[in-house]
Amino acid sequence: MRAIIKTKPAAGVELAGNFPEPDIPADHVLVKVAATSICGTDAHLYTWDKSAQGFGATFPFVMGHECAGSVVSVGANVTRLHAGDRVAAESHIFCGACYMCRTGNAHNCYEMKLLGITWPGGFAEYVALPERVCFPLPANLPIEVGALFEPSGNAVHAIQRAGNIDGCSVLVTGGGPIGLVIVQLAYCLGATSVVVLEPNPFRRKLAEARGARAFDPLAPGFDIDGIVRKDYARHGGFDLGFEVSAAPGTLETLLRALRREATIVCVGLPSEPVPIDITAYIAKKMIVLKGIFGRRIWDSWEMLLAMVESGRLDLSGMITHRLGLEEFDRGIELLKGPSAKVIISPN
Amino acid sequence: MRAIIKTKPAAGVELAGNFPEPDIPADHVLVKVAATSICGTDAHLYTWDKSAQGFGATFPFVMGHECAGSVVSVGANVTRLHAGDRVAAESHIFCGACYMCRTGNAHNCYEMKLLGITWPGGFAEYVALPERVCFPLPANLPIEVGALFEPSGNAVHAIQRAGNIDGCSVLVTGGGPIGLVIVQLAYCLGATSVVVLEPNPFRRKLAEARGARAFDPLAPGFDIDGIVRKDYARHGGFDLGFEVSAAPGTLETLLRALRREATIVCVGLPSEPVPIDITAYIAKKMIVLKGIFGRRIWDSWEMLLAMVESGRLDLSGMITHRLGLEEFDRGIELLKGPSAKVIISPN
Amino acid sequence: MRAIIKTKPAAGVELAGNFPEPDIPADHVLVKVAATSICGTDAHLYTWDKSAQGFGATFPFVMGHECAGSVVSVGANVTRLHAGDRVAAESHIFCGACYMCRTGNAHNCYEMKLLGITWPGGFAEYVALPERVCFPLPANLPIEVGALFEPSGNAVHAIQRAGNIDGCSVLVTGGGPIGLVIVQLAYCLGATSVVVLEPNPFRRKLAEARGARAFDPLAPGFDIDGIVRKDYARHGGFDLGFEVSAAPGTLETLLRALRREATIVCVGLPSEPVPIDITAYIAKKMIVLKGIFGRRIWDSWEMLLAMVESGRLDLSGMITHRLGLEEFDRGIELLKGPSAKVIISPN
Amino acid sequence: MRAIIKTKPAAGVELAGNFPEPDIPADHVLVKVAATSICGTDAHLYTWDKSAQGFGATFPFVMGHECAGSVVSVGANVTRLHAGDRVAAESHIFCGACYMCRTGNAHNCYEMKLLGITWPGGFAEYVALPERVCFPLPANLPIEVGALFEPSGNAVHAIQRAGNIDGCSVLVTGGGPIGLVIVQLAYCLGATSVVVLEPNPFRRKLAEARGARAFDPLAPGFDIDGIVRKDYARHGGFDLGFEVSAAPGTLETLLRALRREATIVCVGLPSEPVPIDITAYIAKKMIVLKGIFGRRIWDSWEMLLAMVESGRLDLSGMITHRLGLEEFDRGIELLKGPSAKVIISPN
Repeated sequence: MRAIIKTKPAAGVELAGNFPEPDIPADHVLVKVAATSICGTDAHLYTWDKSAQGFGATFPFVMGHECAGSVVSVGANVTRLHAGDRVAAESHIFCGACYMCRTGNAHNCYEMKLLGITWPGGFAEYVALPERVCFPLPANLPIEVGALFEPSGNAVHAIQRAGNIDGCSVLVTGGGPIGLVIVQLAYCLGATSVVVLEPNPFRRKLAEARGARAFDPLAPGFDIDGIVRKDYARHGGFDLGFEVSAAPGTLETLLRALRREATIVCVGLPSEPVPIDITAYIAKKMIVLKGIFGRRIWDSWEMLLAMVESGRLDLSGMITHRLGLEEFDRGIELLKGPSAKVIISPN
Repeated sequence: MRAIIKTKPAAGVELAGNFPEPDIPADHVLVKVAATSICGTDAHLYTWDKSAQGFGATFPFVMGHECAGSVVSVGANVTRLHAGDRVAAESHIFCGACYMCRTGNAHNCYEMKLLGITWPGGFAEYVALPERVCFPLPANLPIEVGALFEPSGNAVHAIQRAGNIDGCSVLVTGGGPIGLVIVQLAYCLGATSVVVLEPNPFRRKLAEARGARAFDPLAPGFDIDGIVRKDYARHGGFDLGFEVSAAPGTLETLLRALRREATIVCVGLPSEPVPIDITAYIAKKMIVLKGIFGRRIWDSWEMLLAMVESGRLDLSGMITHRLGLEEFDRGIELLKGPSAKVIISPN
Repeated sequence: MRAIIKTKPAAGVELAGNFPEPDIPADHVLVKVAATSICGTDAHLYTWDKSAQGFGATFPFVMGHECAGSVVSVGANVTRLHAGDRVAAESHIFCGACYMCRTGNAHNCYEMKLLGITWPGGFAEYVALPERVCFPLPANLPIEVGALFEPSGNAVHAIQRAGNIDGCSVLVTGGGPIGLVIVQLAYCLGATSVVVLEPNPFRRKLAEARGARAFDPLAPGFDIDGIVRKDYARHGGFDLGFEVSAAPGTLETLLRALRREATIVCVGLPSEPVPIDITAYIAKKMIVLKGIFGRRIWDSWEMLLAMVESGRLDLSGMITHRLGLEEFDRGIELLKGPSAKVIISPN
Repeated sequence: MRAIIKTKPAAGVELAGNFPEPDIPADHVLVKVAATSICGTDAHLYTWDKSAQGFGATFPFVMGHECAGSVVSVGANVTRLHAGDRVAAESHIFCGACYMCRTGNAHNCYEMKLLGITWPGGFAEYVALPERVCFPLPANLPIEVGALFEPSGNAVHAIQRAGNIDGCSVLVTGGGPIGLVIVQLAYCLGATSVVVLEPNPFRRKLAEARGARAFDPLAPGFDIDGIVRKDYARHGGFDLGFEVSAAPGTLETLLRALRREATIVCVGLPSEPVPIDITAYIAKKMIVLKGIFGRRIWDSWEMLLAMVESGRLDLSGMITHRLGLEEFDRGIELLKGPSAKVIISPN
């Protein structure tokens, strides 16, 4: 089959024309991939930077972890899925048996495999998935949107992790795809106002189209303290923060701009340790610092499905480009410019 | 001053033309009342039915507990309010010292006075309020809407009490004013669908105008099980229920129509004990049964203010009638028919 | 094999001497049963009363759902258990796929089988269990105590369901085995005082031996209001209640004796609907009414293991009688008298 | 009156023999101080180091914020306290009106005065306190123990902030007074095991006397990873951490030694920002980082009272030294050596 392969610990990928189709163990299904979107993590894997090197991949491997498609065959022990079923993949392939899995935290399984990194991924004509990581999609859901459930699930998880967003003013650092879905969801789920800090003007526009006020934090004269004083003084700052950029200084900006007793959810993965003034922010302001890894299985997926099926959340507007497998390099390139989600259709 | 007075334990009220203005103790403010809305409880007090008799009122007393107006003078120990400030009144006049008040539950104070029942109320030209129960209103908020903060705060409290409404399908029994604000708020705060059961066709229309599907539970062929089977089968029933009618049978309807692990919040006050199948519903379905009394002080008020100031919640549409003090009897009458909130303007 | 069989919808059981050993499907293990304790539910099944008839059993079936033993063989798809492993059984045989299972509520699975009722049980030499419902027991844990994990898990669940017991005064109606473990656990987990209402003097002694004050609610002069006034007046009543008796009037006693904003967890399964004054208790006192069905999988089991392994909780004192399979009828009889847990050893 | 005065921004204090007694505003009470314990913060104020300089004190001021005594007179507007009442002082003198105070976070008031720093304190014969910050003490509680409620309340708050300690293995970095009370409380409230890291051997002994295992983190061969591997491997690390030392490296130790999805509560106040690997710990391990400032008003106090009155928590063992006002310098010196709490009796 055709597949995007990472063959060695160096920059670049290879488009294999004749890669072996995956085996189907007894509890797996074989999925014909309809759409796999490109994630920022794929760009890290592509350039093989430090953050990519920490995942423990072995070569060669098929990339792609945000995928959806149709079941074409099922293993002997598969009980619930059938050929023809449309599914999206949970990319955190959990074991189901470790302490994390046993206590409601399968997204953080101690024996986890990562689809498209340590498990053959979805930038390929076919992917083999354990039945337990397949999320059935309703018949009327565009399959492309199904592919967006994995990354959008991170946005859901970030908000679930925050606790309760009702009535909150929200500050988001980073207007990439996950930041943008956080903006949309924040308004759907009860936020009163969202401010996004993002240097990329295209993404600021997308944030504004979703109802946020967007600022360039690198612009001369940018003054977060002034924004707080002018608009959020009564509470003493923003009620809730999401760090979705991993850019230097953003966590400090959030810690300063949030009110006492606020919460920050870290989604971005900074490559270096971040100095935090524990005394000023964690103790005296009592700001809670949390992060997410993946999505809650299946709470985040179910929440997303509920919001999408009810028509309250429209994810299709996140898709700015559609490419074939052979255009993968261009897809990676597009991430740096005026884009949100880039969909690869391997078939 | 002119005031609506309940003079004896019997049906009816009296419009006094020359009632003494209230004293202003050192920690009180005197408020010139601009708007006081009529509550269902006022109708109970008016007819002096059994539920009215349980509040411990002594005669005569000035009725009215949903009021807003302007401070005209302040007692010697008042520190934060000044003449000219616009305020709404928290009707649960808490002591601030009992175990409930000391542990975050002032709305359920053990020494509580009830405005308009056991404390002189707001269907009058003037009302004297302890500074601590005054909620300052922003300058641009219509004062009528300020009067609606007290009853709307119950709707906020009901949703806060439910825990988290994100992604929930909601069933509301009762489309009176509080039920209607619950509908509006439910959508603002993350519900995916709201169904209202209400016999009054005018109120069903108001519910529909707020995005709910509304059914007459007394209509021939009404079949809640059918609604569940058709639209909520995947979850096994509705995710969340609000009982806001106190009508016979509604709690049983909710217990049947909700899914396992769901929550019901009781807002309505039934006059008789309700038989509940503990085994089937509370144990086996693990439905949580909760209720509210008043509003959280000040969390519910702050949430309401945030939603109204941000433009996400419009309460003004709740007002269907505006009357003078002398039309109070008609106001009570209107509650039975095509109305939502009736505002009395005493000045 | 030898097994206790319920052969028909009538009182009594049969000791089969030559019942077929269970098959072992591919994802199952065969367990040689070392100990199975008798539950109150077994007594209901034995007498075949109304509550027993509601579980949907078909005849004949092997009874017994509180069991532990050693794995003797494993099916082809079993991945984690091996012959010789010691396990206890989660009696709620969940499907793993329904909405409840997918969202953290497997104890309340929509497709659940009940061990010893709708699934062949543990009053037998052998029981076949899906691997996924087996809880591995540490080597040094007495296997009898392993059999007590299922019922004790209900006590854990009841306390987990309550939310947080730290610093709470607790009122327990019913001093049977689950009530007694609640007493022990309540003290381990932070309660300051526990009062038990129980007519059986033997069980009152057991409650007192666990640190509770115990009263006979049927004794002349019993006065719960007096107890509240004397000892719990500062909070306005007990902080937390557990209903573990299903006896008439106990829920009303709890609703009266608890303070405002308190929580009641219903563990007992009354055979008739219970009239509840929603207005007085659920709305005005804002008491939360919750119940449990089974144990959280695996949170309740893990909590229990942590408490037992650390030596903080000793369950062995709960065992008052040890019998062979052939003494089963006597075991049922013992439940009515001076007993706590009766262990049947089928091998 | 006699009082310990900080007269200038430099090391040392002065024992004034004739300092003016405080005025009593209308809503204040005058308290004759019976016992005031010395806090680590007092040592910082004494030496006037960087952390002391951040509190905004103006000179001269009376030090002392952990105090208890008897009311000797009351202002005109005091309604609940009377001469002769015994009280302890909440040192966070909250305004009652700001957004924090209005939403249940008075401990983090935006207009807070700090007793003994920005408000005349309790190392003096008399202290004037707003009625609202006085916590009435039961008649049979030793007044010295009353003085310990303020610092012990921080320990309560730390555990309340953690969420739920039931069944948790706990790692505490720092065995000073607050760390030691955390150890005691952790066991009272449901922890299964507590490990304390503390270089001071006297304090390690005190920790061990309270049931903890104590290690010297500076000893050669100290190996936290080994402790985790040996004793906490099944969960993947400790369940819960408390940082109570502000020493360099302790937060990193906790982040490494805790399992995924664990929580750390920061009580210590490091003088420098702490570099934190957000990616490894906050995102991938999903550890929650929280801190506390003061105590919840009055939840923490009420919890403490419940635990002490029930006899479950004995704070008196925390007192290792009792001194007069004139021995204050020696008290400060004692903090560095074999001591837990040092009580000053000003009268």
